[in-house]
Amino acid sequence: MSSQQFSDPVVRQSIDTIRLLSADAVEQANSGHPGTPMEAAPIAYLLYMKHLRHNPANPDWAGRDRFVLSCGHASALIYSMLHLTGYDLSLDDLKNFRQFGSKTAGHPEFGHVPGVETTTGPLGQGVAVAVGMAMGGQYLAQNVDAELFDYRTWVICSDGDLMEGVSAEAASLAGHLRLGNLNYLYLDNKITIEGDTSLAFTEDVGARYLAYGWHIERVEGENLAEIDAAMERAKNDPRPSLIIARTHIGIGAPNKQDTHDAHGAPLGTDELALTKQAYGRDPQATFVVPAEVTAHMAGCVTNGAELEKAWQQQIAGKKSSPAVANWLNVASGELPAGWDTALPTFATGDNKATRQASGIAINALAPQMPFLIGGSADLAPSNNTEIKGENDWLPGRSGRNIHYGIREHAMGSIMNGLCHTPGLIPFAGTFFVFADYMRPAMRMAALMGLAPIYVLTHDSIGLGEDGPTHQPIEHLASLRAMPNMTVIRPADANETIEAWKAAISNRQGPTALVLTRQGLPTVDRDQFGAVAGLQKGGYVLAAEATALQMILIASGSEVQHAMTARETLQAEGIGTRVVSLPSWELFEAQDAAYREQVLPAACTKRVAMEAGATFGWERYIGDAGVVIGMSGFGASAPAGELMKHFGFTAENMTAVARELLA
Amino acid sequence: MSSQQFSDPVVRQSIDTIRLLSADAVEQANSGHPGTPMEAAPIAYLLYMKHLRHNPANPDWAGRDRFVLSCGHASALIYSMLHLTGYDLSLDDLKNFRQFGSKTAGHPEFGHVPGVETTTGPLGQGVAVAVGMAMGGQYLAQNVDAELFDYRTWVICSDGDLMEGVSAEAASLAGHLRLGNLNYLYLDNKITIEGDTSLAFTEDVGARYLAYGWHIERVEGENLAEIDAAMERAKNDPRPSLIIARTHIGIGAPNKQDTHDAHGAPLGTDELALTKQAYGRDPQATFVVPAEVTAHMAGCVTNGAELEKAWQQQIAGKKSSPAVANWLNVASGELPAGWDTALPTFATGDNKATRQASGIAINALAPQMPFLIGGSADLAPSNNTEIKGENDWLPGRSGRNIHYGIREHAMGSIMNGLCHTPGLIPFAGTFFVFADYMRPAMRMAALMGLAPIYVLTHDSIGLGEDGPTHQPIEHLASLRAMPNMTVIRPADANETIEAWKAAISNRQGPTALVLTRQGLPTVDRDQFGAVAGLQKGGYVLAAEATALQMILIASGSEVQHAMTARETLQAEGIGTRVVSLPSWELFEAQDAAYREQVLPAACTKRVAMEAGATFGWERYIGDAGVVIGMSGFGASAPAGELMKHFGFTAENMTAVARELLA
Repeated sequence: MSSQQFSDPVVRQSIDTIRLLSADAVEQANSGHPGTPMEAAPIAYLLYMKHLRHNPANPDWAGRDRFVLSCGHASALIYSMLHLTGYDLSLDDLKNFRQFGSKTAGHPEFGHVPGVETTTGPLGQGVAVAVGMAMGGQYLAQNVDAELFDYRTWVICSDGDLMEGVSAEAASLAGHLRLGNLNYLYLDNKITIEGDTSLAFTEDVGARYLAYGWHIERVEGENLAEIDAAMERAKNDPRPSLIIARTHIGIGAPNKQDTHDAHGAPLGTDELALTKQAYGRDPQATFVVPAEVTAHMAGCVTNGAELEKAWQQQIAGKKSSPAVANWLNVASGELPAGWDTALPTFATGDNKATRQASGIAINALAPQMPFLIGGSADLAPSNNTEIKGENDWLPGRSGRNIHYGIREHAMGSIMNGLCHTPGLIPFAGTFFVFADYMRPAMRMAALMGLAPIYVLTHDSIGLGEDGPTHQPIEHLASLRAMPNMTVIRPADANETIEAWKAAISNRQGPTALVLTRQGLPTVDRDQFGAVAGLQKGGYVLAAEATALQMILIASGSEVQHAMTARETLQAEGIGTRVVSLPSWELFEAQDAAYREQVLPAACTKRVAMEAGATFGWERYIGDAGVVIGMSGFGASAPAGELMKHFGFTAENMTAVARELLA
Repeated sequence: MSSQQFSDPVVRQSIDTIRLLSADAVEQANSGHPGTPMEAAPIAYLLYMKHLRHNPANPDWAGRDRFVLSCGHASALIYSMLHLTGYDLSLDDLKNFRQFGSKTAGHPEFGHVPGVETTTGPLGQGVAVAVGMAMGGQYLAQNVDAELFDYRTWVICSDGDLMEGVSAEAASLAGHLRLGNLNYLYLDNKITIEGDTSLAFTEDVGARYLAYGWHIERVEGENLAEIDAAMERAKNDPRPSLIIARTHIGIGAPNKQDTHDAHGAPLGTDELALTKQAYGRDPQATFVVPAEVTAHMAGCVTNGAELEKAWQQQIAGKKSSPAVANWLNVASGELPAGWDTALPTFATGDNKATRQASGIAINALAPQMPFLIGGSADLAPSNNTEIKGENDWLPGRSGRNIHYGIREHAMGSIMNGLCHTPGLIPFAGTFFVFADYMRPAMRMAALMGLAPIYVLTHDSIGLGEDGPTHQPIEHLASLRAMPNMTVIRPADANETIEAWKAAISNRQGPTALVLTRQGLPTVDRDQFGAVAGLQKGGYVLAAEATALQMILIASGSEVQHAMTARETLQAEGIGTRVVSLPSWELFEAQDAAYREQVLPAACTKRVAMEAGATFGWERYIGDAGVVIGMSGFGASAPAGELMKHFGFTAENMTAVARELLA
């Protein structure tokens, strides 16, 4: 399509159809956001019809360009585009916008509808995920095949996206890394929910992104030739590009254009009729797609089929390349054969911090898993996340050690983008307490069923002197409460190895590995329960030596105290069992019989210990049990003193157990 | 102090003393961060000795300048400064750095030591809190007295602070609002934990802040005259200022300067001795403060006393001003007389969403509480947070409606800064699901015992069509798990009024008001339990009509279903009680007798219902109870359909109760 062709009436017809379909869908649902789809229509049209390499018949084709609608509230836009360009989304789906069970959910949901690359809605997430997608593309291009993976990531985003801090973090990193395969199309419409952006957002966005090292273009949002030329230049610039399009929310709605009334509610019957009139359409007809528009936009289908065909021919000719063959294997969802064979076993007496054992696990996995990619939010030496002997990810050169900088939130979102890249498994570290900074991204991973691995070290007051700002308390509970998040807090080096196995094996959701700063004794597995029990979330680590009277439950660094307390109690003739409970989610996934076997209902005398908030522990201790945990924040002091002060000792556990039995 | 005087040997002596005291403290603790205090010493010296208006004898003097050490890991710096300039912090306190119970915690903690204005450590928080402090100063200057409150907020910050997204959000808003009373001193040392900033942070920070509307200065970190002149210009510039100081981490340590080895660990005995030698000091002597340094820096004490004296004379002459008199009253911690007298009572049949009732409460409180300041992260019309008839906060003009923009994290941190301003009570709104974005700031409020009020609307799947990205599930549990956070989810309009009373009355920690989008029936209080019961967190809303067999527990929008289920069960002759449980924290604060009265242990048949994660509910339902809640994420559909689909109906609660009794 040349810029002369933009004057063809079918082009305007198509753009108007995108606008009115979107407005109709919102009106029908009596809920949603009509204004942004309307303003974005010319950009979306140019993108889908000319610049985006995509095949509507196969939205998952690995060589396609990626598209992210970061302003997910404009979901009607993407649904209209998918329908018009020939994806598996019917006019009826559009009519069922925002209804129960429909493909066309309120915000675009990954896995729910073909052609939606990632779930968006929470502002800032899409633009940051796109950075990860662009990095993923670069990784495949540089480590598998440059021709096959020269795809680009395109984003449509809004003021809200660029106000959110996560987007600032991600953009700074994208500029640093010179991600030339990343282009944002920013709808600069000057309107937010509270009114004009002049109320809160008067910075010079272009100058800011220039400072990040981006390429900037400014265009008028209705000028197709201008937008087209800018997109062309963006594709040819080695930097990530920000195309700032001055757009008009609700354009064409005579009374609502350029006002926040066009943002988050249907236009209303009268205004929608007037809008249709303004576009020269029948004011009463709904969901109209002129035949010439259908014919014109169906061009995407033939175009896309050709694009993919060429790519499939390319890859067919390259299957003998080991890099391509390896990638094809992992891209299909398989783990590489022998991925876990190099994982070590630690001997009793080998007292490691679980973060150290985790570092060893990573470096035992990495050689077998070339698509395992690490990183940290500037804490690699503390998180033990470095893959030794592998490259840092530098500007223009991908690597397996990503320096995310002190940007936890962007790290979380970028990991999601890497997860969207077939074959890649990203892990990354920060201090457990700072998981809060990336929590919105962790939630998105859980919601989408993506499976990044979080290496969260310094997991309790056991980190010591850094004090309460750095000591996680409520973090275990707050992650356990999140659906589809698997939290694992291993008790020793060998449980840590098992935890890594579980994390790698879980490809249906994120896993949080919660690890100590301080050294922990390695349990004698000849004498006590087999470490494979970790895979079931909870297991009998030490059985009662006499008839069961007391169950001691613990996770992580507190398991050692349960073991010592058991010895004392058992010496007093009290039949005491220790249950190691590293993962509530894995334990809950077991059948009732197994859970009863580990925690028999008949034994109601139970003491749990965990150096975190007690919140939620009632589930395992029951009405008659006691939990030893934190009821407030920590303090700054050497770790040993803190543990004593807050009662995380074998002596205290023993005393509490005795009292409970008395 | 003129710039000629900078050549006086005592100046260099003082700066070196700051450096070496800090390094000694870290060495003694065998834990901490020596390098940043060393590089920042000249800046800190100039700040405390010349530019900061402070009185060491009265660190809480309301007219003082504020100082925030945003890079809280450099805590040894502030402790050295406080000691040397005459605050209540002894050399022994320095020697006890990072020890249990000492004033000198690992990171500076508010309320723990005089002269620490806010707790820092989690990067980005300090710079963002400082924006709130500057706004607080502006508010007092414009609404109480311009002379009395012309104070400035000074910040020392690091790369990490400026990489975090929260700082980007806060800086954009500060530039927009033209906070000329805010100055950052940025230690541009080119080093992070993973190595050189060139690994991850190559943006042009100065150009970025210029794009935000800030005034930029660039200085060499050892050039006192240059720094001094830049600080002078910063004070005179109407924009917020960023002074970029090229500094050298661990300066003077012959083998560790300019390396990350100087960052997070003691220099080590040998290197510290070599460092002292390099500064011309006795390599073996520790914690040395030369007498001339003591004498010189004690100038702060006399200076500070004079500054405050002049201010106290000023305010004494203004006590007849009603604005000053009102402020003095609230600044002492009192709530204004009659603050709650205009709060309404809603009649049965008046079905309001609790967010609507909250908006009414706000507008009933606002006229009596001129220091109650509102705002929203661009959702005021949805959060019902607008104080009607009051000014928006615009560039250069403070107001009671703050447009935070789509910047939840900065909003949370700025609210903390406003809380640090004597008399101010900030509240602000966002969707409940986006509380995740500001969670790190909420935690800081809880840790510091600050008392902002969060207005969190759209509190469950009951928000409907926006779908799972916008539907909170785990958020109730995750906030309840946080120490010192009070969560209140009222069941109707009148409980909402009580919730506001509780929030305003709680000045010891943050309160989260969790409110519905959808309308809820107003309970008939003539017939059922008095609404004042909310103040106890949980109360008997409907007593059993016959001998107690079943307790139905609910919060918020699910209480209505418990009430209907009770009617049905009671009609079947089953003695059923309804307990409204809007706040676990308030309920836990009651004595055991009260709790037993509401939830008698003898009645083990209990069904709870809450449209959120079931996590934690075992506490109230006990071993024999059932909780109806969410086990996964929500969906996009009209609210009524979702509620039915997920089982939040009276019918379902009735059925579950019957089954439990069977």
